[in-house]
Amino acid sequence: MSSYQMKQRRTIRQYTGQDIPDALLNELLETAARASNTGNMQLYSVVITRSQANKEKMAPAHFNQPMATAAPVTLTCCADANRFVKWARQRNAQPGFDNFQTFIAAMIDAIIFAQAFCTAAEEKGLGICYLGTATYNAGKIIEALSLPKLVVPVATITVGWPAHTPEQPERLPLQAIVHHETYTDYTPDTIDTLYRAKEELSINKQYVKENNKDTLAQVFTDVRYTRSNNEYFSEAFLSVLKDQGFISTSTS
Amino acid sequence: MSSYQMKQRRTIRQYTGQDIPDALLNELLETAARASNTGNMQLYSVVITRSQANKEKMAPAHFNQPMATAAPVTLTCCADANRFVKWARQRNAQPGFDNFQTFIAAMIDAIIFAQAFCTAAEEKGLGICYLGTATYNAGKIIEALSLPKLVVPVATITVGWPAHTPEQPERLPLQAIVHHETYTDYTPDTIDTLYRAKEELSINKQYVKENNKDTLAQVFTDVRYTRSNNEYFSEAFLSVLKDQGFISTSTS
Repeated sequence: MSSYQMKQRRTIRQYTGQDIPDALLNELLETAARASNTGNMQLYSVVITRSQANKEKMAPAHFNQPMATAAPVTLTCCADANRFVKWARQRNAQPGFDNFQTFIAAMIDAIIFAQAFCTAAEEKGLGICYLGTATYNAGKIIEALSLPKLVVPVATITVGWPAHTPEQPERLPLQAIVHHETYTDYTPDTIDTLYRAKEELSINKQYVKENNKDTLAQVFTDVRYTRSNNEYFSEAFLSVLKDQGFISTSTS
Repeated sequence: MSSYQMKQRRTIRQYTGQDIPDALLNELLETAARASNTGNMQLYSVVITRSQANKEKMAPAHFNQPMATAAPVTLTCCADANRFVKWARQRNAQPGFDNFQTFIAAMIDAIIFAQAFCTAAEEKGLGICYLGTATYNAGKIIEALSLPKLVVPVATITVGWPAHTPEQPERLPLQAIVHHETYTDYTPDTIDTLYRAKEELSINKQYVKENNKDTLAQVFTDVRYTRSNNEYFSEAFLSVLKDQGFISTSTS
């Protein structure tokens, strides 16, 4: 723990067979719950999966990524207005939480909680990996975890003891993501400068070659994050928000 | 730094006059950029506000909360597909990123980055406060910061050296937010049990009294997060997502 440096972290996708004790997991969850949240309403919840059968049940929703079944623990972090609304109704209050802004607040709460958990876990020597599939296949996850109305999964995290030490992946230089006072839009020259190192990495050149593409950007737009997939999953997630009660069906 | 314990953290709303050196701020931003993100596309950006004039310009968008002008630095963390799309177009790629799923991925990236920044800052002795107003008045912030299409603010963080040490606010017991294997919905009895300690806190009893309400829940539903405000800000944020190009206007 004392040797942990956030700046040296890396995502861990391979885990030893060792389990995570309940006491440690609870300590990490308690710590994460100390992170900021909206109005101290704690509009989030987390479903812990330890059962191998349940991991396998959710595997297709996570596109069968190996981490989803190999990690001792997966956490599905959810935007959750259900608990708050049940409390309010039981206390003669009329909650108006069945709307998009509540979902946004709850999603922010859930992701802050998730990331606070990740840092706390890494401090204890654990490794984590986010599965972006939580919002792609939210409908399947809702079914697998029996999530009620006003609960939507927004991040799945796999957690375990590291069985590898991968290289840190590249990041864009800081000036690519930071703006001072106002947003300075990118010119063709700044784009060239900011992406040059990324494009020249041998691993990225290899991806271009393997996929028979001309540029690294085409690997992203034609293979990994295609328009048709993005549009398909956009409609799917909007449908989930309607089904779960966060967007009124009359909203244009 | 060695004495920092995430579990003991608290939000800081009052700051000394001391500034944050550029070198420290950059180190924290570099550290935060090491957190997970979607497909290493880094679909986020951050606008740093140090100028007092600019803080005051944005103050109304943050409902004139004093932290927004009193902190030496505010960070506006944005979901940002603009940079990626500009890069892709410049590399003969056809990005399909003008959709809701891209916004969701970018928002997750931006919040993970924001929270990683907060923990890194707290480790160095700084204090932070999230302003939830970033998504309430996103349109005004877009204007003040000159954010282009495909960029939407999702979290504003005020940062500075703590000038107070507030009590840690209460949190619900862990069993309120954690579910094992599947979601166990709340019964009237579990709601009573989980919210009892919160309701019995003298500070919360005081809020009920001050607001002339019968229950703490009514303070939230009738005063702090009313249906009419939630619905107004839902429509406003959906409009922003359309204007910024993340929801097609033909989407039902």
